[in-house]
Amino acid sequence: MPHIALPDFFTLRTVSWANDSVRMIDQTALPGRLSYLNLTRPEEVARAIRTMVVRGAPAIGVAAAMGLALAVTHSKQNDFRSLLKEIDSSAALLRSTRPTAVNLFWGIDRILKVARASGSVAKAKEAVRAEAKRMEEEDVAVNKRLGRAGAALISDGDTVLTQCNAGALATVGYGTALGVIRAAVEQGKLVKVLVPETRPALQGSRLTAFELVSDGIDCTLISDTAVGHMISLGRVDKVVVGADRITRDGYVFNKIGTYQEAVLAQRHGVPFYPAAPRSTFDLTRTHDQITIEERGADEVVKVRGRRIAPKGVRVANPAFDMTPPELVTAIITDRGLIAAPSEESISQVMS
Amino acid sequence: MPHIALPDFFTLRTVSWANDSVRMIDQTALPGRLSYLNLTRPEEVARAIRTMVVRGAPAIGVAAAMGLALAVTHSKQNDFRSLLKEIDSSAALLRSTRPTAVNLFWGIDRILKVARASGSVAKAKEAVRAEAKRMEEEDVAVNKRLGRAGAALISDGDTVLTQCNAGALATVGYGTALGVIRAAVEQGKLVKVLVPETRPALQGSRLTAFELVSDGIDCTLISDTAVGHMISLGRVDKVVVGADRITRDGYVFNKIGTYQEAVLAQRHGVPFYPAAPRSTFDLTRTHDQITIEERGADEVVKVRGRRIAPKGVRVANPAFDMTPPELVTAIITDRGLIAAPSEESISQVMS
Repeated sequence: MPHIALPDFFTLRTVSWANDSVRMIDQTALPGRLSYLNLTRPEEVARAIRTMVVRGAPAIGVAAAMGLALAVTHSKQNDFRSLLKEIDSSAALLRSTRPTAVNLFWGIDRILKVARASGSVAKAKEAVRAEAKRMEEEDVAVNKRLGRAGAALISDGDTVLTQCNAGALATVGYGTALGVIRAAVEQGKLVKVLVPETRPALQGSRLTAFELVSDGIDCTLISDTAVGHMISLGRVDKVVVGADRITRDGYVFNKIGTYQEAVLAQRHGVPFYPAAPRSTFDLTRTHDQITIEERGADEVVKVRGRRIAPKGVRVANPAFDMTPPELVTAIITDRGLIAAPSEESISQVMS
Repeated sequence: MPHIALPDFFTLRTVSWANDSVRMIDQTALPGRLSYLNLTRPEEVARAIRTMVVRGAPAIGVAAAMGLALAVTHSKQNDFRSLLKEIDSSAALLRSTRPTAVNLFWGIDRILKVARASGSVAKAKEAVRAEAKRMEEEDVAVNKRLGRAGAALISDGDTVLTQCNAGALATVGYGTALGVIRAAVEQGKLVKVLVPETRPALQGSRLTAFELVSDGIDCTLISDTAVGHMISLGRVDKVVVGADRITRDGYVFNKIGTYQEAVLAQRHGVPFYPAAPRSTFDLTRTHDQITIEERGADEVVKVRGRRIAPKGVRVANPAFDMTPPELVTAIITDRGLIAAPSEESISQVMS
């Protein structure tokens, strides 16, 4: 692996709107290479989301919104109704990329609403540009608020177990679960992070460990198989993870492996905190209405192109799992903490 | 990956004594290549155990015994006491390879005892050869008995979750946990097996999936992160795993990731069965006296030679974990089942 200059993940932006294009880090190349892509067409953004060039619920929400903003910005239509028809088709394409994270749909709907309300092609172009930039700035501000709310739960000297990557790379910047860690560090607390590698896509080893090593935050990488053992040894004080969708009844959909962390945390009396902004809450659906994405077998039978399993083996590759509210100590949000989450408490904070 | 002729794991031997050498499959090359090594020196056997060319508690027990038998067989000593001194040093080397599986020590002690009792160099050579062959045959016979005992617990149509590889490749042949599956299949039952890949060394994807695909047994590979999700969906009827050491107080030391399977199985009312022969029981020690091997960082930061984590990251790599008896439904042994294992019930069956 070539040496690369270590970025500052306290300030770096994973996705940004720049010169009427979408600039994003190619996360499939990390941690070996930090490179940026400049995308100008919604189809390119859709492909980037599908192939996990960009991933993480808040990041794909903003990326999808920007993808739709590209459709408006670069449209050749002169007629407003034709423009709306064209962007409806781009919205459908972007919606089809990944089913589980709700931020994707939230981001698309936000741009659609702005475009529809604008009333003319020229105004639509102006308005969606402004909205894309606003969403970018908002995401960072929201994560910093969320981070401060969560940091209150972290004590000096804590070891925090996470899962996957809910960091700067899963958002526009700063991160959700890692935003909580960063805020605690900015408050002068010593925090150690235990990072499961998070197979199959290895967001823990490739992304979270990279963010934490770059930022000089104490971090230890483990196999996903070692989670229960480390908790049982008393080596974990808190669990802080991200979320891809939290339903109105308080079920947390997040990266596969989260549910087993929650069960093990409860068994050993370790608090379990999902961290998510308002845009991750789905107040219209309950847990039984959510589709868990099943991804291709190649992610499991190959690692970085090398085959590790026999030909002909069947594979199941669910990308997310569901943690019921009784395993959640509190949800950390940009609007404060939701302790003992329920339909009522979520509705109170989020409606 | 080149095509390889699929072996028959119902009959294949992972380790065998042949022409005064030890013949073993090089498991580090699987599933890409099925090749055999012929070892003639105890140092070669020690290296093979340390580097996991041969692994699995029963297999390393027999391999270590055969390694010591090589020391006797090829010794140049004419004097019996000098011979015993020489093999004590080989025994010390073999004992130093891996600390957790008790079969290693059991196998070495068995050859040492035979050599010491023989009384002369010529008799020692004769006796250890015979003992090595006997241990090889015994291992297969024991696994078949254990398999039949366990198969009684498996219903037609069951999906069985396992962990790591407790198959033909973890023993001389037939397997312990997979021996239970094979015996059920031989009884005409339809059994499906759910196989976690078992990071870091990938014995699930590389070895267990290879055995099951080769034998035409229905198998589905998953990431280690998907274990809890699959159990929570009701897709697992039984958990059957191997063991590296079972202490007199009923604690099961097995491949890292076993403990979390046991916790999740209990939460969802799924029976949890470790399968192990008499040689895996350590009747002299309790759980607090056992060392859990910590292996090198390279297993976690690289997969098949490719780096997947940033340089400079700290790694914890415990190779085993400990499951307390309250999570164990029954232990499957070659002497029958030990339900609700305790110091008393283990002592009754095993003493």
